[in-house]
Amino acid sequence: MNINNINIDEIILNALREDIGTGDITTIATIPADKSARGKYTAKEAGIICGLEVCGRVFKILDENIEFKTSKKDGDKVEKGEVFAEVSGNARNLLTGERTSINILQRMSGIATLTANFAAQIAGTKAKISDTRKTTPGLRVLEKYAVKTGGGINHRFNLADGILIKDNHITAAGGIKQAVASARANAPHTLKIEVECENLASVREALQAGADIIMLDNMGVKDMREAVNIISGNAIIEASGNMGDLNAQDLLAVAETGVDIISMSTITASAKSLDISLKFVLD
Amino acid sequence: MNINNINIDEIILNALREDIGTGDITTIATIPADKSARGKYTAKEAGIICGLEVCGRVFKILDENIEFKTSKKDGDKVEKGEVFAEVSGNARNLLTGERTSINILQRMSGIATLTANFAAQIAGTKAKISDTRKTTPGLRVLEKYAVKTGGGINHRFNLADGILIKDNHITAAGGIKQAVASARANAPHTLKIEVECENLASVREALQAGADIIMLDNMGVKDMREAVNIISGNAIIEASGNMGDLNAQDLLAVAETGVDIISMSTITASAKSLDISLKFVLD
Amino acid sequence: MNINNINIDEIILNALREDIGTGDITTIATIPADKSARGKYTAKEAGIICGLEVCGRVFKILDENIEFKTSKKDGDKVEKGEVFAEVSGNARNLLTGERTSINILQRMSGIATLTANFAAQIAGTKAKISDTRKTTPGLRVLEKYAVKTGGGINHRFNLADGILIKDNHITAAGGIKQAVASARANAPHTLKIEVECENLASVREALQAGADIIMLDNMGVKDMREAVNIISGNAIIEASGNMGDLNAQDLLAVAETGVDIISMSTITASAKSLDISLKFVLD
Amino acid sequence: MNINNINIDEIILNALREDIGTGDITTIATIPADKSARGKYTAKEAGIICGLEVCGRVFKILDENIEFKTSKKDGDKVEKGEVFAEVSGNARNLLTGERTSINILQRMSGIATLTANFAAQIAGTKAKISDTRKTTPGLRVLEKYAVKTGGGINHRFNLADGILIKDNHITAAGGIKQAVASARANAPHTLKIEVECENLASVREALQAGADIIMLDNMGVKDMREAVNIISGNAIIEASGNMGDLNAQDLLAVAETGVDIISMSTITASAKSLDISLKFVLD
Amino acid sequence: MNINNINIDEIILNALREDIGTGDITTIATIPADKSARGKYTAKEAGIICGLEVCGRVFKILDENIEFKTSKKDGDKVEKGEVFAEVSGNARNLLTGERTSINILQRMSGIATLTANFAAQIAGTKAKISDTRKTTPGLRVLEKYAVKTGGGINHRFNLADGILIKDNHITAAGGIKQAVASARANAPHTLKIEVECENLASVREALQAGADIIMLDNMGVKDMREAVNIISGNAIIEASGNMGDLNAQDLLAVAETGVDIISMSTITASAKSLDISLKFVLD
Amino acid sequence: MNINNINIDEIILNALREDIGTGDITTIATIPADKSARGKYTAKEAGIICGLEVCGRVFKILDENIEFKTSKKDGDKVEKGEVFAEVSGNARNLLTGERTSINILQRMSGIATLTANFAAQIAGTKAKISDTRKTTPGLRVLEKYAVKTGGGINHRFNLADGILIKDNHITAAGGIKQAVASARANAPHTLKIEVECENLASVREALQAGADIIMLDNMGVKDMREAVNIISGNAIIEASGNMGDLNAQDLLAVAETGVDIISMSTITASAKSLDISLKFVLD
Repeated sequence: MNINNINIDEIILNALREDIGTGDITTIATIPADKSARGKYTAKEAGIICGLEVCGRVFKILDENIEFKTSKKDGDKVEKGEVFAEVSGNARNLLTGERTSINILQRMSGIATLTANFAAQIAGTKAKISDTRKTTPGLRVLEKYAVKTGGGINHRFNLADGILIKDNHITAAGGIKQAVASARANAPHTLKIEVECENLASVREALQAGADIIMLDNMGVKDMREAVNIISGNAIIEASGNMGDLNAQDLLAVAETGVDIISMSTITASAKSLDISLKFVLD
Repeated sequence: MNINNINIDEIILNALREDIGTGDITTIATIPADKSARGKYTAKEAGIICGLEVCGRVFKILDENIEFKTSKKDGDKVEKGEVFAEVSGNARNLLTGERTSINILQRMSGIATLTANFAAQIAGTKAKISDTRKTTPGLRVLEKYAVKTGGGINHRFNLADGILIKDNHITAAGGIKQAVASARANAPHTLKIEVECENLASVREALQAGADIIMLDNMGVKDMREAVNIISGNAIIEASGNMGDLNAQDLLAVAETGVDIISMSTITASAKSLDISLKFVLD
Repeated sequence: MNINNINIDEIILNALREDIGTGDITTIATIPADKSARGKYTAKEAGIICGLEVCGRVFKILDENIEFKTSKKDGDKVEKGEVFAEVSGNARNLLTGERTSINILQRMSGIATLTANFAAQIAGTKAKISDTRKTTPGLRVLEKYAVKTGGGINHRFNLADGILIKDNHITAAGGIKQAVASARANAPHTLKIEVECENLASVREALQAGADIIMLDNMGVKDMREAVNIISGNAIIEASGNMGDLNAQDLLAVAETGVDIISMSTITASAKSLDISLKFVLD
Repeated sequence: MNINNINIDEIILNALREDIGTGDITTIATIPADKSARGKYTAKEAGIICGLEVCGRVFKILDENIEFKTSKKDGDKVEKGEVFAEVSGNARNLLTGERTSINILQRMSGIATLTANFAAQIAGTKAKISDTRKTTPGLRVLEKYAVKTGGGINHRFNLADGILIKDNHITAAGGIKQAVASARANAPHTLKIEVECENLASVREALQAGADIIMLDNMGVKDMREAVNIISGNAIIEASGNMGDLNAQDLLAVAETGVDIISMSTITASAKSLDISLKFVLD
Repeated sequence: MNINNINIDEIILNALREDIGTGDITTIATIPADKSARGKYTAKEAGIICGLEVCGRVFKILDENIEFKTSKKDGDKVEKGEVFAEVSGNARNLLTGERTSINILQRMSGIATLTANFAAQIAGTKAKISDTRKTTPGLRVLEKYAVKTGGGINHRFNLADGILIKDNHITAAGGIKQAVASARANAPHTLKIEVECENLASVREALQAGADIIMLDNMGVKDMREAVNIISGNAIIEASGNMGDLNAQDLLAVAETGVDIISMSTITASAKSLDISLKFVLD
Repeated sequence: MNINNINIDEIILNALREDIGTGDITTIATIPADKSARGKYTAKEAGIICGLEVCGRVFKILDENIEFKTSKKDGDKVEKGEVFAEVSGNARNLLTGERTSINILQRMSGIATLTANFAAQIAGTKAKISDTRKTTPGLRVLEKYAVKTGGGINHRFNLADGILIKDNHITAAGGIKQAVASARANAPHTLKIEVECENLASVREALQAGADIIMLDNMGVKDMREAVNIISGNAIIEASGNMGDLNAQDLLAVAETGVDIISMSTITASAKSLDISLKFVLD
């Protein structure tokens, strides 16, 4: 597995409970208990498939005798109309698990696909598309996995696995220099220190304070280029601020300034579900 | 409250735990423990605000001494640039709860806004926009609340609070007539029976079987109009099938056929987050 | 399965934890760890057996190698002295799971048996015995399943899967007409609207307001008969109010008025456990 | 409090979630959000009231601003028609919590009342009525509290807080002597050792082995009297086996043999709910 | 199993979640997903091994295909350098579970080893080493199991499975006599009553009140010997109070006074982890 | 607060449930329900106090009316015999929460004290004492907080907030160079990359690969000094491997080699509880 059961089983169980409520009454009322069935997953539009392992786990948790098979792996491209997976077993349980499995698959694939689209726009530069913490509450681990599957990279998973000093931290600490020093003194040494900078003066200050990563927040392309010069390889550079709203040309211009990372909430906060259908045949 | 703590506290707690991880190290390292702060929520684009009560509850759960105030209520319109809420209290906890509060608010407001947009397109007809079960795993109760806040109506919350007979149920039961009879005999009498129909023959069969709700699935406008005539007030009529992809004119044409409900997954599955910012001032 | 693991595993796990506490010390102290055993379930009185699948699941959760076998299925009659199931496996775990398995089986079978008794009293009429929400806290899904197994039907599972307008709702809304209209406007269209009526005037008002179900609450048989005439097939009719306290003749009289449903809390709130024993033989 | 929040909050929360589901739609649809109300609890039959503190906690968990007041305390007698408690606050939340509060109160009071009835039958003897582990799964701590409130005493709460050697343990250990010795060697010294005896020979053997408590299982009154003589104060004596099915005279005869404890599952497994109503007045 | 899955799975799952966080990124980044591996557990110092079953369960919960094999059983001695168990399966999951499995094994073995050391010091006397409730929060059931594995006995597992009357209870009740009487009247009859005594006068009072166990708290050896005489077999005698700080000779002197139990928090509160390593070979 | 409720409430609730079981029967049996009391915490030995906020939270969760006051703050020194905190409120709840509050306080203070002792031994050098992941399962966040309180620094909290490449990762990746490259390509850029090195050749290789942190694992002081020269400020240097077993002189020698961090599991895995008493006076 690329994604650990320990991290996803609780999410899946919550999702199943939410969707099943006190029982799938339509199915119980109309489908015999011993009926079996087979279903095929079809992509209704082209995209990057993501969540196959999670999808298989949904059915395993609901009914350990259901079998989920796929010829694809997370990150593969699917074409419109392509059948990419099959599921078979007890008909009632298949129908009961249908919506949960599709909701997860559509959402993860939607994020992977959108991420891949942005990544393609800056192909050839050294920049990478990164996510943010603007993810759906409760689904972050799945959504960040989808970003990586789509060719992006992951920023912090939570407030504990990265230091990101923003304006309020700087104000409270009395300046960038002091904030970076406090962070270095108080936070685990295993974490890099990132400073959010809104202008070139701040960039210089952060660099001098020894920041490991410098975020260029809402800067113009010209300033970004200058910042790259100033930093000159002495810190990782992250461009940020409505990056997901840029058109392809403008995004490429940002990438071509020489920044290392372009982070955007768009890939998780505004991704459309990839259209996927699951059709059953009762045996 | 319009939404019960019993239904939302677990979601909020999960979201906070997910975002905080083992602790907000940047904040702990740079902000004194006894510092207080105030923050203002500003809409960065116009829309329907939704999730204010939930947002207040986020901070209450994190720190019972934080105060959340707003002049708006869920469903109100906010303009671009409008400050619509304030939060004040311990600076560390405010910064730690910031992202969770915004993620929830943005997502709920995004759904309410998109729902309101679709509702506006069919204003003047008797049709209502309805959601589906294609919601974000784990957040359904919040997302359906947002749909209602935006002027839509709610379809089933889960598989237990509505009977929706689809093709597989019909096949297994041996026909629409038998499926409806099985449902009537086996499911709670408090629930209406809905049948998914793909053509006029099925509509007639469902009507005769005594269906309470008839879903016109992926029918053309002409067939829908004919179905409305056939049904003639003897069942609630729901139009369904990629309704969210129609342009305003085509959607209005559907509404004008006389259907009661137009259901679409778009309002929950493809809503963009409403852009909202939270800026703090340290005291 | 007729009852989904997603809905029962948590109940079973709680019950096992409650009964085992920090460990079954008597068994650990006196039974060798590798001993195996077999046990037989015997009905100590005649009744309707219910909870066999749940019972099997109790042992599966405690120890996946324990085997539970039965020649019966939920809803079958058992005679006094009849052996209806066997369980075999590790002796310690069998003894440790004994009480939980029996408590659940006795309670569910007690409810199914009592429901079947009431159902037999009104056999030949079109009326059905229905449960209420007066169930044991935490066990509703099991108890309602037992009611259905005993030949009854299920009323609402919770406050979300049915609309039941009572006196307080009517008062607050300003009358039956307004209350029904509010419910129709605000609640999911998939749910029927039931109105609790204490006299014939209310029945007429509810009917006119378009209620889908009319509850005749604590009415005499004569009034019920009149209500059936008034309603004349235009709503489902539910008789309610101490129905479980009626003797067989009086209950039949209610059923013969032509009501569709007779709901009573007695079948869940006052059911006696069916006496069942489990005797082990150590191998 | 006589019963600790740590032990009951989880039970209450589960019960509320079970009853509320995804929301109390009738109430939300018909009662204004800011309406307040007051309710009175009335006993519809005489009995011992139990669960008042738990009942107050139900509303506290649902809505911390609801106020619950009572002039009684657990264990007090209530007469038919007596108003024994009041609750006031937000009307929606009062209506939403109504059923859960009543279900718990009725069940606990039913058990306390039945226990008190049995206790009264043996008043004047030294014997006490004791419960067993045949309680409702998930509610044991509440039900055993009700037994004590009704004047009974508590047997083991779970398999960890008492040693009860039954036939299977005796067989596996190779006799009563060996079983008691094993228990003494392996189990915590803080627990008494009880041995289930079906005849006088076993009683003598258990006594000699040093049992602290001897259970006379399904013995006749004559044998019980003889057992009391044999034991002669050297062990606590518990009479057991369908004791709840005895008529008042026969139960008294058992008590008069000189046994210390009469244990019966009837008081928990077969108690009828005490009939209690809650009527609201909207402000 | 000597220790029930119902009691340990939650502890293990919590421990795994705590250690894995949002994912083992080093392993995911550097180890191919389909790599397999084998690992050997080696004792780096001599001691009593404990936790083997728990350790196997850690991997079973993380990945049901991992195989854990051992030639030892809990309580066996391991020598410095001895390989006592092997684990094999998916390399990523083995590396991810490594730390949790070792932390548990080291802690349990450390406690078993320290307990065995103390037990050896009083070998030949009738006294036994007992634990207390001074255990690591959340791990009590594992730590008490380790104490028993090391040759000690278990005192109360929690406040519900034993009655221990201390000074505050005595003061509130108005004396030892009254406190014992209250306990006898109000607590389950399955539990022995223990009284903490600080001097011989209290010992006599407790004995007369009918205490089942008398704790000699912080008494000198001479007083203990006198107390043993006074009690003369009419109660179990427990010596307590910094017993873990005594040197071997002084501890033996306590044991030789004739006390039955020497309880000490040292064996759980101050045990050093037994040094154990787990080395993997990638296949 | 220095430690967030979101992170500790679950730990505290588990600990209270573990210790209270089904109820504190001794206290309920002997202490009147309305009795109040006050208690004083006294250090029975000198040390660094830690866990005061957590301790206050224990009582808040058990009974929100209990008041916990202290003149100290976490990290302060307490002398033998010093009273450092008081608690007052309902006597039953105070007695019931006593053990949990002390167990947590003793464990955290024990770790803080031991950490401070080691830190004192290397005072004057630039080296810091760091913890490891060898913590008590379930208590890591508390134990790492105690390490920091004692003057140490925190290494990774879990496998997700730091990259630590060990021998197996190196082997699987095909060498240090490749492992570091894989980590850089696949893991979040917010994390530093640490490489475990057992000899100077590895140190050189890791340095060349661009490791951010180099762990000198089980090296002699001479090699460490040479490693410091080689690294020459281009990476953080961590000395590791039985550091907690060194005597003061040898530990100082390690620190004086110029390493930045000395990590040791001893401070968490082998800390003795700090002896603390809580004595109550009933009002």
